[in-house]
Amino acid sequence: MDANELASKVAGAMLAAEGTGPAWGIRIEEARAGYVRISMTLRADMLNGHRIAHGGIVFALADTAFAYVCNGRNERAVAAQASIVFLGSAQEGETLLAEAEEMASEGRSGVTRVAVRTNGGRAVAEFTGYSRTIGGAVIEI
Amino acid sequence: MDANELASKVAGAMLAAEGTGPAWGIRIEEARAGYVRISMTLRADMLNGHRIAHGGIVFALADTAFAYVCNGRNERAVAAQASIVFLGSAQEGETLLAEAEEMASEGRSGVTRVAVRTNGGRAVAEFTGYSRTIGGAVIEI
Amino acid sequence: MDANELASKVAGAMLAAEGTGPAWGIRIEEARAGYVRISMTLRADMLNGHRIAHGGIVFALADTAFAYVCNGRNERAVAAQASIVFLGSAQEGETLLAEAEEMASEGRSGVTRVAVRTNGGRAVAEFTGYSRTIGGAVIEI
Amino acid sequence: MDANELASKVAGAMLAAEGTGPAWGIRIEEARAGYVRISMTLRADMLNGHRIAHGGIVFALADTAFAYVCNGRNERAVAAQASIVFLGSAQEGETLLAEAEEMASEGRSGVTRVAVRTNGGRAVAEFTGYSRTIGGAVIEI
Repeated sequence: MDANELASKVAGAMLAAEGTGPAWGIRIEEARAGYVRISMTLRADMLNGHRIAHGGIVFALADTAFAYVCNGRNERAVAAQASIVFLGSAQEGETLLAEAEEMASEGRSGVTRVAVRTNGGRAVAEFTGYSRTIGGAVIEI
Repeated sequence: MDANELASKVAGAMLAAEGTGPAWGIRIEEARAGYVRISMTLRADMLNGHRIAHGGIVFALADTAFAYVCNGRNERAVAAQASIVFLGSAQEGETLLAEAEEMASEGRSGVTRVAVRTNGGRAVAEFTGYSRTIGGAVIEI
Repeated sequence: MDANELASKVAGAMLAAEGTGPAWGIRIEEARAGYVRISMTLRADMLNGHRIAHGGIVFALADTAFAYVCNGRNERAVAAQASIVFLGSAQEGETLLAEAEEMASEGRSGVTRVAVRTNGGRAVAEFTGYSRTIGGAVIEI
Repeated sequence: MDANELASKVAGAMLAAEGTGPAWGIRIEEARAGYVRISMTLRADMLNGHRIAHGGIVFALADTAFAYVCNGRNERAVAAQASIVFLGSAQEGETLLAEAEEMASEGRSGVTRVAVRTNGGRAVAEFTGYSRTIGGAVIEI
């Protein structure tokens, strides 16, 4: 299995195993080594009191893409820290795309950037995640 | 109405108006000027593939407490940026407490710290949120 | 030696051993277990083109206080990640105070908050640092 | 003047006007619209007690590159917030390169990523900066 296939299998297995991804309607659009793009359509139960996407759900989408990327070599990794800048709002019914790319990897540490946009292309958030590998594999191969 | 009553009313109104808080089972334990404590019980649909709380939902809880605090003077404020450090895990059925305290406020900017712990006292995450007021009131008084 | 004496000795030894603290004119005002307060007077070579304190030097001051706190148990620790929010400016000749407090400690991880203010009390920045212990002691005791 | 020339002029003018850049020995290697690469050679007064680059000086280098990028359209901008992950160490005499790229720009907000490496290519830090324009121009044109 090459690195892209492996990354794609890991992302699929993670989505299948987690409670959150199916609950939030996460779809994997593309997953390859060091890169993942996922989407999620905003529902009423994802909105804050101003009827726009809650910051928590925008982060949760970005964090999900981050998790798929940093586990993509099939070495179990966890988020140690993450930062997010909110750039724009999104409404119910809009689909958000989270595009995650690994920026650096050094020893057990990795840094992944995630851009969140509407499917119309408006910037919603920029996320940076810092991961650490913890030993073990995500899937059996 | 004094500052503590106002902060409490704002928090209650925000929870009632948002889609997320009721969907996640958020409960307000205490809300006063510059301080909010909320709780949420972890369900299966909040877990990642390792069957522990997804980082996205831990952030979402902290971000909710942050939002209640930074709007507590009834001046509408939004999250501009936030950072989180993950310190420990939590399982299905455990209740998470998020305790938010305003650290600084200068002009239109505010900084709020949120500690997330299990109700048994284990540290789960430390969150720092940066807010900006955007004009307007949250509730009519 | 009690925990406060140890923390104070470690901070003093770190300042003596480093190139930066003396170069920047860092002074330790108080150091005890989980808490450090240091000061630095702004010089012309610490200003940006607008003749106010460069963000890099404000961070550097906060990061120094953070380092003294997270090594205070005499277990070597390093910064893994840090975040800063800039709240106000400061001019040449003003003295900045950085007040650092450990917020949480869990296994090898620690989170420290640092508030940077002018000695006149204006908020300049809020910093959050995430540290990891790496084994070994800072000073021989 | 095209966008690349303008960005280059702004970066040069900022370095000339600030106290820090000359004091730290900052050199501009390349500056064009949305992108800046600068370098700095590590001196003894930039080291911590372990005789490696102090986190504060690594941040200061990245923050300098960030400032040049986010002002590159000749619209005055300031850092509102920044995050850094430390990935590796660097020694006295080594030259650090900071490569800054604007990731997103939306209204008055911008997000810039900076990678800090040794000139030998080792990853030292990943930085994310959030800027806001404040009105006015950096240079007269």
